[in-house]
Amino acid sequence: MGNTVIARIEQALVQHLALSGGPSAPPRLMAAMGHAVFPGGARIRPQLCLAVARACGQDAPELTDAAAVALEFMHCASLVHDDMPCFDDADTRRGLPTVHKQFGEPLALLTGDALIVAAYQTLVRAGAAHPQRLVGLLELLSEGVGAPSGIVAGQAWECETRADLGQYQRAKTGALFVAATCSGALSAGADPQPWRALGECLGEAYQVADDIRDVIGQAEALGKPVGQDLHHSRPSAATDLGLGGAIAHFESLVQATVDAVPECAAASALRQLVRQESERLVPREACEKYRQSPATEGRQAA
Amino acid sequence: MGNTVIARIEQALVQHLALSGGPSAPPRLMAAMGHAVFPGGARIRPQLCLAVARACGQDAPELTDAAAVALEFMHCASLVHDDMPCFDDADTRRGLPTVHKQFGEPLALLTGDALIVAAYQTLVRAGAAHPQRLVGLLELLSEGVGAPSGIVAGQAWECETRADLGQYQRAKTGALFVAATCSGALSAGADPQPWRALGECLGEAYQVADDIRDVIGQAEALGKPVGQDLHHSRPSAATDLGLGGAIAHFESLVQATVDAVPECAAASALRQLVRQESERLVPREACEKYRQSPATEGRQAA
Repeated sequence: MGNTVIARIEQALVQHLALSGGPSAPPRLMAAMGHAVFPGGARIRPQLCLAVARACGQDAPELTDAAAVALEFMHCASLVHDDMPCFDDADTRRGLPTVHKQFGEPLALLTGDALIVAAYQTLVRAGAAHPQRLVGLLELLSEGVGAPSGIVAGQAWECETRADLGQYQRAKTGALFVAATCSGALSAGADPQPWRALGECLGEAYQVADDIRDVIGQAEALGKPVGQDLHHSRPSAATDLGLGGAIAHFESLVQATVDAVPECAAASALRQLVRQESERLVPREACEKYRQSPATEGRQAA
Repeated sequence: MGNTVIARIEQALVQHLALSGGPSAPPRLMAAMGHAVFPGGARIRPQLCLAVARACGQDAPELTDAAAVALEFMHCASLVHDDMPCFDDADTRRGLPTVHKQFGEPLALLTGDALIVAAYQTLVRAGAAHPQRLVGLLELLSEGVGAPSGIVAGQAWECETRADLGQYQRAKTGALFVAATCSGALSAGADPQPWRALGECLGEAYQVADDIRDVIGQAEALGKPVGQDLHHSRPSAATDLGLGGAIAHFESLVQATVDAVPECAAASALRQLVRQESERLVPREACEKYRQSPATEGRQAA
């Protein structure tokens, strides 16, 4: 992904955040929403949405941009709520104070709520000119976020005494990746169905990579506290499979993701994006270092 | 409002909550969402939506029901988050433990988020057959809830050092009442604009009534703790105007609400609903008792 795409995403985020607020909004709420969205992380969900839309012959760029922004607002909302004391109790995110550390818990709670609403507003605003596509895009977004199988459900599985690791990961991370690939296709007027598997595989790879980095990562490198999964007794591939097993699982998921790219003119560019992202998530040298080391096994060693 | 209308609302709430969950959802999340929605309060927002739709010759009852349910889900979401320790820290609501008391803070946070998403899902599901009305209904719902002037903004004004009482009340309560009257009209294919003032006046009357009841109410009668406004230093008509002044203000708002009902065949029934609700909110005898008593003045007496 080039700088042009990132610049386009940042510009759309700025524009839609301003449209969802305005001069009459409570100023600290707007500041907290800005803090939640900027500076961003890798913006992988909007990038994915844009890449798939381009592969599908993107004919409504404003709708695609709005879909991408809505996905990122939802992702940011989930991070703000997930960082709060009743969940991760994280002090930093992307190297800066978390929203509740900077603005207090009440505003952090409201910031998450307001970003969820802003996500829908963004889609509706751009979708009025494409009412049929809009309905599908709203459904995809809601599936990616709500109960029974979106981000909120993923978080809620952490509050159950029994949770299936796969179901948990699909909900907590996979669902919004599926929304990203499918929304990219639908915003361009294409059938979203063939793009679902790509989102599923990539989402699972991301979640496993996060589990791996939670164990091997360094606080400085991630800009957030590590060891959170073990600390919060959350389901984790690294604790379930051991670090070596988790890395083998990650590598097979990256391959499955590459294979899930539908045949199209842009297929090779998309496959390259997947490989590039996987290298960014868990560098090859880390994979080689930990893949076979029995000393790093998680649950087995404990 | 008759029992038939209430029964219709309860049935629609049950049905749409089930559709937003399902057997694969995390069971405790679904239980917490149910606890947040049932048993309900007066269901005044959905009642208002249905009454206006009927006055406008309701031709799409499923869409009207969905709009009514979406409003109530949003209202319940705001109550769940508002009750949490970082806001009101309330132990009871409608005579039962609050969601965070019953299910813990993490699930309470997620329940609010999930209900916001469920509200949009409900509208989108029913609105697919009416895409043009759907766009307007989604805009009205978002305005009633988000920044700059919906419920979330209202709550956020509590986190500012300066807040205008009117702006705070319009956002915290009025905005969702406006969404209720306007959505009722639009769901029936009518112009929502003439119904805006009714929602504004009624919302303000509700907020002032809440302030009054916070001072004179009894915990047993309300089923929730009282004295919260003073305790949390929130903007309040009763502290700003004194109790007598707040009651005079309430009575003038009830009259303004009656006057705001647009001329239509159902006007007299709607005016009766307003008078009936105002009597339920602050009984006439309480108005007469406190209207003139200087000993009950709030800020002045302190």
